[in-house]
Amino acid sequence: MKTIDLNSDLGESFGAYKIGNDNAILKYVSSANIACGFHAGDPRVMHETVALALKNNTAIGAHPGLMDLNGFGRRAINITEQEAYDLIIYQVGALAAFAKAAGTQLQHVKPHGALYNMAAKDAALAKAIAKAIYDVDSSLILYGLAGSELIKAGKAIGLPTASEVFADRMYMPDGSLMSRSLPGAVLSDDKKAIAQVLQMLKEGTVTTANGSKIAVQADTICIHGDNAKALVFAEKINTSLKNAGISIHSFQN
Amino acid sequence: MKTIDLNSDLGESFGAYKIGNDNAILKYVSSANIACGFHAGDPRVMHETVALALKNNTAIGAHPGLMDLNGFGRRAINITEQEAYDLIIYQVGALAAFAKAAGTQLQHVKPHGALYNMAAKDAALAKAIAKAIYDVDSSLILYGLAGSELIKAGKAIGLPTASEVFADRMYMPDGSLMSRSLPGAVLSDDKKAIAQVLQMLKEGTVTTANGSKIAVQADTICIHGDNAKALVFAEKINTSLKNAGISIHSFQN
Amino acid sequence: MKTIDLNSDLGESFGAYKIGNDNAILKYVSSANIACGFHAGDPRVMHETVALALKNNTAIGAHPGLMDLNGFGRRAINITEQEAYDLIIYQVGALAAFAKAAGTQLQHVKPHGALYNMAAKDAALAKAIAKAIYDVDSSLILYGLAGSELIKAGKAIGLPTASEVFADRMYMPDGSLMSRSLPGAVLSDDKKAIAQVLQMLKEGTVTTANGSKIAVQADTICIHGDNAKALVFAEKINTSLKNAGISIHSFQN
Amino acid sequence: MKTIDLNSDLGESFGAYKIGNDNAILKYVSSANIACGFHAGDPRVMHETVALALKNNTAIGAHPGLMDLNGFGRRAINITEQEAYDLIIYQVGALAAFAKAAGTQLQHVKPHGALYNMAAKDAALAKAIAKAIYDVDSSLILYGLAGSELIKAGKAIGLPTASEVFADRMYMPDGSLMSRSLPGAVLSDDKKAIAQVLQMLKEGTVTTANGSKIAVQADTICIHGDNAKALVFAEKINTSLKNAGISIHSFQN
Repeated sequence: MKTIDLNSDLGESFGAYKIGNDNAILKYVSSANIACGFHAGDPRVMHETVALALKNNTAIGAHPGLMDLNGFGRRAINITEQEAYDLIIYQVGALAAFAKAAGTQLQHVKPHGALYNMAAKDAALAKAIAKAIYDVDSSLILYGLAGSELIKAGKAIGLPTASEVFADRMYMPDGSLMSRSLPGAVLSDDKKAIAQVLQMLKEGTVTTANGSKIAVQADTICIHGDNAKALVFAEKINTSLKNAGISIHSFQN
Repeated sequence: MKTIDLNSDLGESFGAYKIGNDNAILKYVSSANIACGFHAGDPRVMHETVALALKNNTAIGAHPGLMDLNGFGRRAINITEQEAYDLIIYQVGALAAFAKAAGTQLQHVKPHGALYNMAAKDAALAKAIAKAIYDVDSSLILYGLAGSELIKAGKAIGLPTASEVFADRMYMPDGSLMSRSLPGAVLSDDKKAIAQVLQMLKEGTVTTANGSKIAVQADTICIHGDNAKALVFAEKINTSLKNAGISIHSFQN
Repeated sequence: MKTIDLNSDLGESFGAYKIGNDNAILKYVSSANIACGFHAGDPRVMHETVALALKNNTAIGAHPGLMDLNGFGRRAINITEQEAYDLIIYQVGALAAFAKAAGTQLQHVKPHGALYNMAAKDAALAKAIAKAIYDVDSSLILYGLAGSELIKAGKAIGLPTASEVFADRMYMPDGSLMSRSLPGAVLSDDKKAIAQVLQMLKEGTVTTANGSKIAVQADTICIHGDNAKALVFAEKINTSLKNAGISIHSFQN
Repeated sequence: MKTIDLNSDLGESFGAYKIGNDNAILKYVSSANIACGFHAGDPRVMHETVALALKNNTAIGAHPGLMDLNGFGRRAINITEQEAYDLIIYQVGALAAFAKAAGTQLQHVKPHGALYNMAAKDAALAKAIAKAIYDVDSSLILYGLAGSELIKAGKAIGLPTASEVFADRMYMPDGSLMSRSLPGAVLSDDKKAIAQVLQMLKEGTVTTANGSKIAVQADTICIHGDNAKALVFAEKINTSLKNAGISIHSFQN
């Protein structure tokens, strides 16, 4: 029986500000990417989110982002490779300490937002990020876009990696995601999204925008939980996978 | 032969902003308290300061502060015990990751500025801080004002502690420091400051403002290095201690 | 016919974070206190909130707070009078520019959270705040707790002032608010809260915790709109005032 | 007799951090670009720098930057035009309030660092910035790189503009500055730098990297004052201009 990891971004609240529905989404995912205080999250939120993930038996990962709370880490910032290395070390270390204080440890690291996208295409930045993770703890699993420079950099340095796929995004023939600015980029039909995931897991392929099939490595699926519709989809995909005989597990258990 | 630890606050630069003379002061101290990004410091500065301390064979400690860069962590903020716990975990974890990436580990934790002063008098806050350090790593040495609530809290939870004394500050009969707002609070005569330290180390006492002698535990001495006068004094006290047969060592080696 | 101003805190969202229900509460209030980017709010939110208030014909005021986004400006910080002066100038100026760009101008300034509470009791801090507002624009109305040091400081320097009262808080015989930590501090019965307001407006008195009546100046009433219950109460008090022949107006129109 | 404005970036300290030598450079320049708290500066520093500029009879301008204190506003951030508009309004308003409180008013606005460079080439961003300044105060002079999109956008909307030139930078035949990464980009010989400025002012031309002369509009010259060498050059250029019969004046007096 095939298994798959479902991951979701959590712990993105900040001070008096609440974002997301962490309690609800934790029923459907196996791995939690917890924000580390740069693009979102703060020490209290990190503490509480680690506790919540533990209670739900969900694997815990760091979700480091650019130092841009006002932009939620979604705006590209022209940082150096050294800056990328250092901000990864800092944020992974901070979350690791909350995990340790709670009697557990991190499973993985998944960069957030603009940092994730930049590292998918920029080999030098990807290498700096992978090296930072490796230098903190070489057993941490690096989550990155399937086929990206980030996954390549992780493998090159000797990190375990998890190739991430998206249920609801149209793929291009070169394996990249269709830009959100183009029509058809997002699969709004839940059935098509679930069919895409099942094909990825059973055949190891995805049907791209021009109808061609390409190979795709699917180790983990990103699940959103920030609104009611997202939660409904999370439940659907969770159920559909189980019905298809695919078990949902993190890489820890 | 008696030994003593000399510690200094380092890594308090931020981005384009430089503070302190880390290179120079490292010649005279055995332990470095490195800022962790809340009151001062940033990921790059932490990385570089850990490397610099390592190169100088100086023990490395975290110097966590209040989240107040504009006030340099010197303004009291009315935080809860839970907030204190969480900000310690976060900052100690972040610095510990830089230490780990550099192939070393933290020796100690010394709270900064207003947090240090608040924790000296507020038993509940002190307990929260001590518990945070203990939960991250129970082998870390807690640095606090000799006789303070922070030292008591560290001992109570089972942390190793280092009682900190000041060379250039007048002590009150109850063991507290004379307020800086009062005349005579700071010993501006280097000879008197050095004599005070030698008395602390040899007799275990300090002569207070009213002439009485009280017992004082002196495990580590705080040394400033942020201006030319401070550096001259650092060299003087370093030399005077050695001349008196007192060797200067961190608790690691 | 008596008139009264109803004011509410608005524009407290930040980046991707949403707080409050500005659109809904604007139906019931005559003056908007808009956050200025220190405890909450950011340039975009300020821009949008000024536009929204204008559209609703609501008077616009600055709602400056302590530089503490993570604590939402609710934690006392031990700032100097100079720091208070400067942070008021800065924040009032920033919001005034958005008002000017939108073709309007500020009516008032109401300090937020811990700054409001500190300025109610600390005469020196209150004086610094009043002077800052006066120095930026001596026609701005200073909103403060009725009977507070802040209102006294505003009058002393020559600012117009608006004494603020609370519908749902129990008053003490000395005119202060009963501490929220005590039972009975908050009037949970909407009818009692509305009756308290009507007595304030018609008699100029409030019945205090020990049953005695004291004089109270009521120029403006603070209305919350951050949850469904608060919105229901906002509508109730708005309707009850109108039914009692009291018209709701800002000081501008 | 020809006149020229010399401008310098000031007020870039922050909290306990000092940068620059504002007192010294103010002897040589006619206009001060004062940081507004995003890339550098804070309310106290802005207050003090406005007072210092006033005392030196130097014209005061806002120097708004990207929200990136850690990067000192030097890293490009992928902001929208709306974000640029709003951050200009906010920062110009904040500084204008300090000027007003000091009994004076702003002369100009000069964007800082990455924002200045982005606005030199990106017409849409330049337009958003120019519109923000115009909407706050249409009499403010927009400082931008000579020949840049920013100057064009300022003229198009009806703002007065000042075209900025650099004494010590090599120009390309298309009027842009040679990239700092190329050899010869910076004129390290003070005599050549001063000769370049004199040619700009007397002939209205600059000799470019390939030896060709092109027209250049020189209304204001940027002068650095952040180190001893820069201060020496500031004095030299100030003296050389006066000796050449060119008087140094801001646009205000």
